[in-house]
Amino acid sequence: MPSEKLDTYFKQVDVMTDSFINRLASAVAIPSVSADPALRPKVFAMGDFLVKELKALGAHVEARELGKQPDHPELDLPPVILARYGEDKSKRTILVYGHYDVQPALKEDGWNTEPFELSVDEETGKMFGRGSTDDKGPVLGWINAIEAHQKAGVDFPVNLLMCFEGMEEYGSEGLDDVIREEASKFFKDAEAVCISDNYWLGTEKPCLTYGLRGCSYYSITVSGPAADLHSGVFGGTVTEPMTDLVKLLGTLVDNKGNILIDGIKDLVAPVTEEELALYPNISFSMDDIYTSLGSKTVIHDDPIKVLQARWRFPSLSIHGVEGAFYNPGAKTVIPAKVTGKFSIRTVPNMELEDVDRLVFAHIDREIAKLNSNNTFKRELMHAGKWWVASPKHWNFEAASKAVQKVFGCVPDFTREGGSIPVTLTFEQATGKNVLLLPMGSSTDGAHSINEKLDKRNYIEGTKLLGAYLHYVAEEKQV
Amino acid sequence: MPSEKLDTYFKQVDVMTDSFINRLASAVAIPSVSADPALRPKVFAMGDFLVKELKALGAHVEARELGKQPDHPELDLPPVILARYGEDKSKRTILVYGHYDVQPALKEDGWNTEPFELSVDEETGKMFGRGSTDDKGPVLGWINAIEAHQKAGVDFPVNLLMCFEGMEEYGSEGLDDVIREEASKFFKDAEAVCISDNYWLGTEKPCLTYGLRGCSYYSITVSGPAADLHSGVFGGTVTEPMTDLVKLLGTLVDNKGNILIDGIKDLVAPVTEEELALYPNISFSMDDIYTSLGSKTVIHDDPIKVLQARWRFPSLSIHGVEGAFYNPGAKTVIPAKVTGKFSIRTVPNMELEDVDRLVFAHIDREIAKLNSNNTFKRELMHAGKWWVASPKHWNFEAASKAVQKVFGCVPDFTREGGSIPVTLTFEQATGKNVLLLPMGSSTDGAHSINEKLDKRNYIEGTKLLGAYLHYVAEEKQV
Ligand SMILES: [Zn+2]
Ligand SMILES: [Zn+2]
Ligand SMILES: [Zn+2]
Ligand SMILES: [Zn+2]
Repeated sequence: MPSEKLDTYFKQVDVMTDSFINRLASAVAIPSVSADPALRPKVFAMGDFLVKELKALGAHVEARELGKQPDHPELDLPPVILARYGEDKSKRTILVYGHYDVQPALKEDGWNTEPFELSVDEETGKMFGRGSTDDKGPVLGWINAIEAHQKAGVDFPVNLLMCFEGMEEYGSEGLDDVIREEASKFFKDAEAVCISDNYWLGTEKPCLTYGLRGCSYYSITVSGPAADLHSGVFGGTVTEPMTDLVKLLGTLVDNKGNILIDGIKDLVAPVTEEELALYPNISFSMDDIYTSLGSKTVIHDDPIKVLQARWRFPSLSIHGVEGAFYNPGAKTVIPAKVTGKFSIRTVPNMELEDVDRLVFAHIDREIAKLNSNNTFKRELMHAGKWWVASPKHWNFEAASKAVQKVFGCVPDFTREGGSIPVTLTFEQATGKNVLLLPMGSSTDGAHSINEKLDKRNYIEGTKLLGAYLHYVAEEKQV
Repeated sequence: MPSEKLDTYFKQVDVMTDSFINRLASAVAIPSVSADPALRPKVFAMGDFLVKELKALGAHVEARELGKQPDHPELDLPPVILARYGEDKSKRTILVYGHYDVQPALKEDGWNTEPFELSVDEETGKMFGRGSTDDKGPVLGWINAIEAHQKAGVDFPVNLLMCFEGMEEYGSEGLDDVIREEASKFFKDAEAVCISDNYWLGTEKPCLTYGLRGCSYYSITVSGPAADLHSGVFGGTVTEPMTDLVKLLGTLVDNKGNILIDGIKDLVAPVTEEELALYPNISFSMDDIYTSLGSKTVIHDDPIKVLQARWRFPSLSIHGVEGAFYNPGAKTVIPAKVTGKFSIRTVPNMELEDVDRLVFAHIDREIAKLNSNNTFKRELMHAGKWWVASPKHWNFEAASKAVQKVFGCVPDFTREGGSIPVTLTFEQATGKNVLLLPMGSSTDGAHSINEKLDKRNYIEGTKLLGAYLHYVAEEKQV
């Protein structure tokens, strides 16, 4: 029973609260914006900051250089920082991931405070600053946990492998290769993976995330005349590409969310009883979705159906049209070449090749029906696979016990509608169970102005990460 | 019979060719770009140039000041120049229109020559320069005609009223009011109107234009959530505005050019035998339309059907979508508010109010079918009416004789698919027949780089304008 050790650890975290907030303030003060070439040295500086902190705690640290940035050959990619804390063969080894780069931020965008100065509102406990919740808070959470164990004299329960990258907000350039390369090297002892880079479903209750949808993104291009035409001069004489395109886009999905492409539904795994049992406990109401939409224009009137539609079933969205008139005002143009874009969010057990095959077959059938003399091209622009883990795995069991210990409640077991590609990469490269264990809450505004992390989420979150490692250490070997 | 006088006049025009080209060169050298605030003084300078030329020939000239430009209150609008040449009560009075402003032009846009220096290619006779064909050549054609009559000692056959504006390429700001105001004043003696500001159907044969389609421009706005959403997080949960919009746009027209809005076809006047008889003589082939399209993606395989589709029947074009994703690449957005834009080219006898009524009824019916919880708004963004004149009117008969005299062939009787709003304004304000008598040819590139006017079109065109006035003077009073 880790109870006693944990209580000691928790007390130490409470004692060190100010020091942990200072650590976060130091990190937020480094504007490590990976998308801004001018700030690239700051991304390196943030990497150095982590290396220094980790070495000071006695961790073994290696920086994997990634070479030049393909789309900016004058820029060096920031390194992936690999660290190991503990070499005890008798302990479990857990691999954790986070990122030390952040989204761009300018005061002028509408921030109430300087984005790269951590501003703590003592009344509400909100700590504003770019990167506070995404993802510097969680990354420092692991470091805080190590330090608090040392200061409290509590034995660290596992060997901790850490993988912190500096390009997450710009496509994780180079990361996948490192993960695959190190799976049998630096990461070879890892028995489970924990990623802290997503958010609670709401603001009160922690969650464990066991699934993500994939995304297959398609385009349909219709071209006819050599250049855009004046609709006065040519309207009625030419087969207009837009006429064909809107017809094609109109065959894909209805406004109740039903994908009208033959065979797509058949690819979806049936919902199991076990899975269904997870939903009723989740704290989520129709008001939550109304609030996030800013409207009541929902497809489903039942919170469980809403969550299932977001997490568990595929969806098809039409994103827009390239090549047509898009400005305000009126322009009498016949666009010569238009590209419609749509994507399908995929779920278990949709094989992506099957999805492509069905989508293309559908489009080709509909094109044939048009009997058009325009030229058509359809293609897959990119695809990322869905991911799902077993929430009954000991990795999740341990995290669930940790949540109950720290927050006094059973966590929500959630999926997410969007994708976090690194999750699948870790699972495939290591073959181990991956757990998403978020620190921040749904209102943190990760990529928005006034990004914040609540003091409670940071401090109790640091306790949670440590507690998780204690429970993981106790879980039966299987 | 004006034959002898005309031959003398023609010879004089030939003698003065160089001087007329110099006049055009002087005009092109003034960059009277109405859309460019920095060049506004040049538009005024171009007006002054015309005033000076007209006065030197003994015309009575008045400049109508139009005040400030509504969308640029710091700018003075250039004046509408009204001129009268001849006060002989026994002669017919003809009102002509042209514009002295031009489209923007920069060498860097791809011009082979300086856009504001007339460059005459002696081999091909092409005279390159911004405004050469649109509309300085035709405007100077009237002045040349007066001067050649004077120099040749041939009595000018009519009283000529001239209306030259300086804002045509920027929406003819202020012109309509002047026309309506002066209809009973400066223009009160006008018995017919002649506008030289369009182009031959091809390059060899002049045309007389007796009809223009109108344009009713509509938008449909669908809105749902308060802001754009991430399709991963919200796909499947929200009624997506784009799904509704593409369905609505798909109900408007088919790719064979058939407008699918109930009742629209019934508003179209039946094609008469008289009208049909005009088509076979028109020099127009399928190759002409293939060349202008840069493709063979036509709706009709017969040149007469192509011309009728362009001139005589309504068409519906979908121009684009505002508010959706339109850039290259892939963005996983669910647009919150999207506006589809389309327009209908209208023809006799479509009453615009009827068109609006049918369009809105159609859209409302289709919206109802969608059973959507999104919010819909449809509106008329702007409307310009179609125009058609009788090509049997003495105004056209005179122009036809003039073409036969100068070019040795019967002109094409054409309509245009686009609109020239001033045409309808003149017809409605004066109640007189309006003739469109172009000088330039279809390849002049009026609004493009390397705009040109062929020497032949300018010099024979000057003869044509003069000959037209002689034949008009001879036409029986009806
Ligand atoms: Zn992140
Ligand atoms: Zn992020
Ligand atoms: Zn013009
Ligand atoms: Zn023009």
